[in-house]
Amino acid sequence: MDTSEFRKRGKEMVDYIADYYDQLDTRQVYPDVEPGYLRHLIPDSAPQEPESFEDVLKDVERIIMPGVTHWHSPYFFAYFPTASSFPALLADVLSGGIGCIGFSWAASPACTELETVMLDWLGKMLNLPEEFLAGRNGEGGGVIQGSASEATLVTLLAARTKMIRRVQSENPELTEADIMSRLVAYASDQAHSSVERAGLIGGVMIKNIPSDDKFAVRGSALKKVLHEDRAAGLIPFFFCATLGTTPCCSFDRLLELGPICNRETIWMHVDAAYAGSAFICPEFRYLLNGVEFADSFNFNPHKWLLVNFDCSALWVKKRSDLTSAFKLDPLYLQHCHQDSGNSSFRSLKMWFVFRMYGIKGLQEYIRKHVKLSHEFENLVHQDERFEICAEVTLGLVCFRLKASNELNEALLKSINESRKIHLVPCHLREKFVLRFAICSRTVESFHVQFAWKHISKLGVLMDFSLCR
Amino acid sequence: MDTSEFRKRGKEMVDYIADYYDQLDTRQVYPDVEPGYLRHLIPDSAPQEPESFEDVLKDVERIIMPGVTHWHSPYFFAYFPTASSFPALLADVLSGGIGCIGFSWAASPACTELETVMLDWLGKMLNLPEEFLAGRNGEGGGVIQGSASEATLVTLLAARTKMIRRVQSENPELTEADIMSRLVAYASDQAHSSVERAGLIGGVMIKNIPSDDKFAVRGSALKKVLHEDRAAGLIPFFFCATLGTTPCCSFDRLLELGPICNRETIWMHVDAAYAGSAFICPEFRYLLNGVEFADSFNFNPHKWLLVNFDCSALWVKKRSDLTSAFKLDPLYLQHCHQDSGNSSFRSLKMWFVFRMYGIKGLQEYIRKHVKLSHEFENLVHQDERFEICAEVTLGLVCFRLKASNELNEALLKSINESRKIHLVPCHLREKFVLRFAICSRTVESFHVQFAWKHISKLGVLMDFSLCR
Ligand SMILES: Cc1ncc(COP(=O)(O)O)c(C=O)c1O
Ligand SMILES: Cc1ncc(COP(=O)(O)O)c(C=O)c1O
Repeated sequence: MDTSEFRKRGKEMVDYIADYYDQLDTRQVYPDVEPGYLRHLIPDSAPQEPESFEDVLKDVERIIMPGVTHWHSPYFFAYFPTASSFPALLADVLSGGIGCIGFSWAASPACTELETVMLDWLGKMLNLPEEFLAGRNGEGGGVIQGSASEATLVTLLAARTKMIRRVQSENPELTEADIMSRLVAYASDQAHSSVERAGLIGGVMIKNIPSDDKFAVRGSALKKVLHEDRAAGLIPFFFCATLGTTPCCSFDRLLELGPICNRETIWMHVDAAYAGSAFICPEFRYLLNGVEFADSFNFNPHKWLLVNFDCSALWVKKRSDLTSAFKLDPLYLQHCHQDSGNSSFRSLKMWFVFRMYGIKGLQEYIRKHVKLSHEFENLVHQDERFEICAEVTLGLVCFRLKASNELNEALLKSINESRKIHLVPCHLREKFVLRFAICSRTVESFHVQFAWKHISKLGVLMDFSLCR
Repeated sequence: MDTSEFRKRGKEMVDYIADYYDQLDTRQVYPDVEPGYLRHLIPDSAPQEPESFEDVLKDVERIIMPGVTHWHSPYFFAYFPTASSFPALLADVLSGGIGCIGFSWAASPACTELETVMLDWLGKMLNLPEEFLAGRNGEGGGVIQGSASEATLVTLLAARTKMIRRVQSENPELTEADIMSRLVAYASDQAHSSVERAGLIGGVMIKNIPSDDKFAVRGSALKKVLHEDRAAGLIPFFFCATLGTTPCCSFDRLLELGPICNRETIWMHVDAAYAGSAFICPEFRYLLNGVEFADSFNFNPHKWLLVNFDCSALWVKKRSDLTSAFKLDPLYLQHCHQDSGNSSFRSLKMWFVFRMYGIKGLQEYIRKHVKLSHEFENLVHQDERFEICAEVTLGLVCFRLKASNELNEALLKSINESRKIHLVPCHLREKFVLRFAICSRTVESFHVQFAWKHISKLGVLMDFSLCR
């Protein structure tokens, strides 16, 4: 394919995507296929001779689309949102076209530099403390990671290195292995599984701190565990606070937890994967209070800030903590100013989105989603068969029938099997709960009303089947 | 931006990219900017109000392009190639448009399934042993990773878990920490820095095995170290063999190393990040002989197989080794058939590239690059001031002036400062060496000849400055 054919095909593909979005509300949100469906539809091996673009594009409709879960359908209310916006798509075309790999400054100066500046822009939007910004000569600053999980891992490892060095400098007789075996990290019992996984990868103990009745970790709960663990000879080194937990979007109490971590020289990382985007609105910024005590802070613009996957923003107060934990300098990378990891030109997406929406446009977007979730919350409230299971702060509503777990499971099953909308569940303590997350960029009150009517109708059938 | 504006702007962007490629050979391959250049060119913070696409695109030329290292310029001979092809770009537009997140089967069935099938296609192209393929019910199979570094990390961690479990089952009195402190992993002294980093992350010892005079690790060298380490009470658990080392594209001797690893129950991982693509050509497949002894094998289609970043292919004989090392099942992910990690629809790129090039087209592409590197090798050979520093097998030529390191450093400096072509160096033993890698999809004999004339001319100036 030469450039002139690329011009043609590229434009056809742009039209295909535009058509896809125009008609997305008519596509069934969740597919009907069974595991293994695709293998039967395509050949066992790659073709020897080239095939045409037309043939491939035809197969997209025939083979791929029937197996797609349409994350951007206005009837998709599952998980948390994954971002999609046209400015980000355009930037991704550009980034793919330039196709540079940004593993060092020299490998692509523009890539490295735009990233630092965009993370400063975003940090300012969130009103992050100055210490987290790179500015012209700051010690802090932001980097783009592929995911919140990666950000948690990277900070846990940096904290591990830092603590090992500290303990060794005070106790030169201890080996690294001795210290490792006594290190312990903490997170809420509501934290995302990636925190446990980070502990597993890093080979350190990781403990859950029990959350309170609002699913939030309080200072007192952390203190209690720290006290016990210190008494048992363990070395607490890392606490991952969650702002906006995955099950129900609850918020750990940073203002209580931060001073404890600082006093005890425990690295506090703040994971706000989903909720972080909301902090660009002054009325939600209070949720981030206490971040001034944190060593690192992360959220995913690729969830709720219209920057397509992947784009997870991580800020640290001391960039040297990250680099000194990982720095290895083979000559072929040393070529001047080494810095970041291996990546494409992800900061372009942020630049396009921030400029083409403007801060006001992004704030409006967040507000609209929050408004819609409260609209849904009110609908649930008005139906006395149902209950709200956790405080609704942002775009997620956790609810259930006032009935057994079995019945709620049956309700969810019938909702998803009818294929009109798509939801996923969670457990809150012993309760099976339905999560209704405002996800799509194009979701409107109309879709939320439709979803509720549908759920409520299926709820009636549940009651009925229960009575039989 | 609504869909109708996206149609318009998307097409403009396609034209911009096509123009970029049409004129790429006229752009200076390496930029003139100094660190910090970009911050001066853009505002301190994001705009409140939306800006227009035109303004953003204008700034791409004004602010971004002057700081770009043009990886796809035919005058770029640095590092290793990073792939770029039009079919992959088209697939990425589609993948971005669908915008699904494939962290479980349910999150996007098509995404999960196409990935498995594409890795089977690719495995067959390489003539990988059947055990590595998923087939309809195999224990093995492939997954896409973001990078070779990630693949090494994942396999090292899986091997670590496996060995800890094995040792504990035989010695229940040992704690995990006891075992961890005795684990040791190995790789060539020529291995990529990511192997050392994986050891660092995983908290295990990692040792270099000395390579021979061809920069290859031999069985005897591994045996010697294993013998010493076992005697010292260590537990060898992982060996990362490299096919196509980063400095000079040398090949560890799998046929000697594999049986040793198997006998000693050491996980053998094969990292062929760059070289792996060549194994689709029957005449280069011999380089992969011995992979039948490996537990896992990885290479980067995003380097040399025309599938744009990111797409690193990892195969294992037992998929359960990977999942059991990481499996954590919170309810919101359990929704049936969980499998893979968090990612976009990366397999689409493979599908588009494999079909639109065909196996033959891909083989031709590899062969053309290898031919060009031999052409360059011959030019170096004919000039007696220069020497070839390592056997040229694929698309990389390591060479230097028969002179001091200082003079070679000066030569490289003058090459890169003249901005006509771009190279990076490496060290081979004590020698400072220039690496000439065939990189661009559009590089021709003409560019290679030009590059050599340029280098040779600067070489004369070096001689001159030396004589003064
Ligand atoms: C609180 C929280 N942390 C981490 C994650 C994981 O995010 P990622 O997929 O970017 O790793 C999620 C995902 O929903 C989350 O809700
Ligand atoms: C042999 C080898 N392994 C690993 C890597 C790292 O690859 P990635 O950037 O995909 O992690 C490279 C990069 O050049 C390499 O040459």
